[in-house]
Amino acid sequence: MAERTWNVYLSGEIHSDWRERIEAGAREAGLPVSFFAPVTDHAASDDAGVGTLGEESEPFWRDHMGAGVNAIRTQTLIRDADAVVVRFGDKYRQWNAAFDAGYAAALGKPYITLHDAEFDHALKEVDRAAQATARTAEHVVDVLRYVIRGTLP
Amino acid sequence: MAERTWNVYLSGEIHSDWRERIEAGAREAGLPVSFFAPVTDHAASDDAGVGTLGEESEPFWRDHMGAGVNAIRTQTLIRDADAVVVRFGDKYRQWNAAFDAGYAAALGKPYITLHDAEFDHALKEVDRAAQATARTAEHVVDVLRYVIRGTLP
Amino acid sequence: MAERTWNVYLSGEIHSDWRERIEAGAREAGLPVSFFAPVTDHAASDDAGVGTLGEESEPFWRDHMGAGVNAIRTQTLIRDADAVVVRFGDKYRQWNAAFDAGYAAALGKPYITLHDAEFDHALKEVDRAAQATARTAEHVVDVLRYVIRGTLP
Amino acid sequence: MAERTWNVYLSGEIHSDWRERIEAGAREAGLPVSFFAPVTDHAASDDAGVGTLGEESEPFWRDHMGAGVNAIRTQTLIRDADAVVVRFGDKYRQWNAAFDAGYAAALGKPYITLHDAEFDHALKEVDRAAQATARTAEHVVDVLRYVIRGTLP
Amino acid sequence: MAERTWNVYLSGEIHSDWRERIEAGAREAGLPVSFFAPVTDHAASDDAGVGTLGEESEPFWRDHMGAGVNAIRTQTLIRDADAVVVRFGDKYRQWNAAFDAGYAAALGKPYITLHDAEFDHALKEVDRAAQATARTAEHVVDVLRYVIRGTLP
Amino acid sequence: MAERTWNVYLSGEIHSDWRERIEAGAREAGLPVSFFAPVTDHAASDDAGVGTLGEESEPFWRDHMGAGVNAIRTQTLIRDADAVVVRFGDKYRQWNAAFDAGYAAALGKPYITLHDAEFDHALKEVDRAAQATARTAEHVVDVLRYVIRGTLP
Amino acid sequence: MAERTWNVYLSGEIHSDWRERIEAGAREAGLPVSFFAPVTDHAASDDAGVGTLGEESEPFWRDHMGAGVNAIRTQTLIRDADAVVVRFGDKYRQWNAAFDAGYAAALGKPYITLHDAEFDHALKEVDRAAQATARTAEHVVDVLRYVIRGTLP
Amino acid sequence: MAERTWNVYLSGEIHSDWRERIEAGAREAGLPVSFFAPVTDHAASDDAGVGTLGEESEPFWRDHMGAGVNAIRTQTLIRDADAVVVRFGDKYRQWNAAFDAGYAAALGKPYITLHDAEFDHALKEVDRAAQATARTAEHVVDVLRYVIRGTLP
Repeated sequence: MAERTWNVYLSGEIHSDWRERIEAGAREAGLPVSFFAPVTDHAASDDAGVGTLGEESEPFWRDHMGAGVNAIRTQTLIRDADAVVVRFGDKYRQWNAAFDAGYAAALGKPYITLHDAEFDHALKEVDRAAQATARTAEHVVDVLRYVIRGTLP
Repeated sequence: MAERTWNVYLSGEIHSDWRERIEAGAREAGLPVSFFAPVTDHAASDDAGVGTLGEESEPFWRDHMGAGVNAIRTQTLIRDADAVVVRFGDKYRQWNAAFDAGYAAALGKPYITLHDAEFDHALKEVDRAAQATARTAEHVVDVLRYVIRGTLP
Repeated sequence: MAERTWNVYLSGEIHSDWRERIEAGAREAGLPVSFFAPVTDHAASDDAGVGTLGEESEPFWRDHMGAGVNAIRTQTLIRDADAVVVRFGDKYRQWNAAFDAGYAAALGKPYITLHDAEFDHALKEVDRAAQATARTAEHVVDVLRYVIRGTLP
Repeated sequence: MAERTWNVYLSGEIHSDWRERIEAGAREAGLPVSFFAPVTDHAASDDAGVGTLGEESEPFWRDHMGAGVNAIRTQTLIRDADAVVVRFGDKYRQWNAAFDAGYAAALGKPYITLHDAEFDHALKEVDRAAQATARTAEHVVDVLRYVIRGTLP
Repeated sequence: MAERTWNVYLSGEIHSDWRERIEAGAREAGLPVSFFAPVTDHAASDDAGVGTLGEESEPFWRDHMGAGVNAIRTQTLIRDADAVVVRFGDKYRQWNAAFDAGYAAALGKPYITLHDAEFDHALKEVDRAAQATARTAEHVVDVLRYVIRGTLP
Repeated sequence: MAERTWNVYLSGEIHSDWRERIEAGAREAGLPVSFFAPVTDHAASDDAGVGTLGEESEPFWRDHMGAGVNAIRTQTLIRDADAVVVRFGDKYRQWNAAFDAGYAAALGKPYITLHDAEFDHALKEVDRAAQATARTAEHVVDVLRYVIRGTLP
Repeated sequence: MAERTWNVYLSGEIHSDWRERIEAGAREAGLPVSFFAPVTDHAASDDAGVGTLGEESEPFWRDHMGAGVNAIRTQTLIRDADAVVVRFGDKYRQWNAAFDAGYAAALGKPYITLHDAEFDHALKEVDRAAQATARTAEHVVDVLRYVIRGTLP
Repeated sequence: MAERTWNVYLSGEIHSDWRERIEAGAREAGLPVSFFAPVTDHAASDDAGVGTLGEESEPFWRDHMGAGVNAIRTQTLIRDADAVVVRFGDKYRQWNAAFDAGYAAALGKPYITLHDAEFDHALKEVDRAAQATARTAEHVVDVLRYVIRGTLP
């Protein structure tokens, strides 16, 4: 059987090292995965609009401009992904992560949620449309290894 | 010019009377709108799975079953809607509302967000993909009146 | 909120009365559902090709002709359905039921499987892509009542 | 004329050597084909969920978890395939093979069925939506050679 | 089970009475079918462009204008049809009929071809993508009766 | 043959009576057409955002809000139309009319352009993707009559 | 500006050297084009089914089998093409060429027709949905050169 | 995280050096972008039809032929782009730029508009469906750098 490179988009929380752990785990396992992500530099992300298109003093429109610029990246990468991982952490409301999940679901794009059990009830709709719910970054690596190589840890 | 009935799906918060206010406002304005919504009886919604398909003791799977049954309703109604209103209130995490917004966005379905300014920054991605952000149910009625009749209040 | 008529397609087993039980249950509950189904007269279905297009002695091509004529009906009705119920009974291989489930899944059309627990393992892929797995026709009616009216039995 | 590599997904039976025979035949013929397949290690496939995401004692949910993880692989590979071969053997019910066929059909993806004549009647709907029905792995190689090179054996 | 009205588009030959025979047969059988067709007045069809948009002396552009105006009708009606019948007669080249068949096939719209055996070899690609090949208008009525009512003649 | 009501969306210029002339002509001809249009009250259209969602002093964002609200109407009506007429007059730049044409083209929705010959060169791309280019509102009525009834004036 | 390789599918007539002339012209012009085509060996094409899948004595089904096998190639290559050239010669009815044109049109795939003026009237619908109608293979090369390089001969 | 090459299509004005400035800026920043564009040689573009397909004296049809040939290039490149930049300058009506924007919008393809503030009101619908509105070519480079690298200038 042939091997292919999988494009995996890592959506959601930007304040912990879950992306690095998944990347390191996949590298260690020798998996042919190209990982993509939103811009994870919080300050840069918040200034994505005014930092590129020019000043804007009104907070709502600053955010609006920034979200538009970020969407060029995120929606393109989701459309181009073979699978998406959506991480919900314990800080912030992370509505954009849930938005990405809905976006992926409507495109028929498989995604994996990654979150603690405390959010299970609140995330039930998001988990239901997912193909898997993982508790740790290591579990995500195990899923990817199985999906790509067919082997269990 | 001809008139048509508009199907509008009201997604999100189920603990305040915003749906009733939009419905009342549209009725008062004589607008030809058919409103649809998720099941808004919180207890019934939580039991949607076990109440119809049989018992399940594990909370994760109870939610999973319930979310599946609810999705038959919600995804069908979103696909069938001409426009969607997505309401974010001040309680709960409401990730399913953001999920619905992402789902609508990927389908190219126009939607209006409805929330207070305090959530502006957290909802910037969701607002950016919307066609309008309203602060009150009355504003939503004004938008619908304009969209359908072309008249301003 | 407005009410709408739901189109529900009943796919699968044609040798028990499960369709009649679902229809009777929905009628009794006063649900606004239009039910559709494949041709359930086994003999007519097998002769769908030669009975309309002319004789054919080779069994493979007899079946081929019949399956084509039946597909005009089944694929149109699945595409037009809001939801699909796919029933697996204990006779025959029922590969066409699983085919319909895969067809519905790829279209993003929600479906409910209906089968005994003995088939759970063999149907795991089909059940996974479903929004619900029911054990009895009555459970399907309960799901439809909830989906349409938001009430539990 | 230019040559291209064809992606062919081999769906279905995992208890005989049909995949190996097709692969060997294509290699021998020098065909530019990349073959893909579901995980064919039966034990690993059954444990795809609990082996990656954590324990689950209830058989239905074990299967559910496993089927979700497997679907990340199978649905992605079907969507990415130029053509699909769907094999029905004489063991097990193989509803997932028929599901894959329906999934491919709805996507407009050409597929070839591979099975003995004894299943012709039971598979008539699945065969009708296929572009070809082959009896042996060698026939599939002949079809691929013709499709890719335009030459007959 | 519910009944629905089927939209059937009758494409192809305009110099024999096959449409009238299908319509009469369906009416006689009491079938709930709405039939649609291209403009079958040959002279009007040829002048569809210059007769509505203004003069044009160059034959190529006269045809071009006419074909554009006719396409507004034909492509809309094919998209809106549940099933299409494509008739090939013994006069003219009828490339537009084959074009309509290809158009329907790419949309996943089921169609029935209607032609004499003498054209079988020349129409093999068009017949292969069809769900049925009929020899007479009466056979088409039989297919429609079966598809809609499930009864054989 | 059956008759159906055609939905026709009239896009573009709002400062002349071309819509009324088409509507009157169609009514006079007894054509079953439902006409739809953007909001043609220029002042209301410009205030569509601030008049419904609340004040905004910055002109760019006033327009942005208004254009979003208008898009709920226009994009929904274009998606729902059987055919679109796009009118270019001699005032203003009318980029939104060309935008609507591109939008319709990408959806595979047939459209008719309506403009004077002086704009032919500038509109060549827009005309090329159209099914017809008309010079007068009366010509549009003639096209609609032919498309719907098959008769020439 | 960047350069890309264009995939061009050459559909239609198989009894003259038009494909070779286009290929030679493109090679001479140094154009980055990968050309694809149906199987142009007439005898092999007619035996595509029985030569790969096994004997069949009935001519209709022989053709049916062959057309299915050929469709795996042709429909995949059309879907993968950036542009299609459809050639109509003076022999045979070439309904499959018109079928390919309709198939390409429904997919929104640009195509160029190539035929003599004597077929203009008969091909008007096929030409109308094309982006260009060429008279000679050399004209097709000129179109490709312009499309890819932006230069005229 | 992995890097990918972005395909960016530069639509619109052909009489200033904005494309060169974007290309130079991206090259200087070392961004992995492949830029594509319509044919920007005005004379060649106007003769795209008659220069490749043969003479035509009527201006309307000359333009029609040319626009068809150009569309093979432009629509293919827009469909293949990850993002589109649409430039409106101060000369000509540039309806084709607005057409491209509408085309991109309907495909769900993100685009950036580039124009002076004087056109803000006239371009409000086009800007609203864009993900960003830039004033200078340098701003576009800043947006691309951020989208691709996540860094601000």
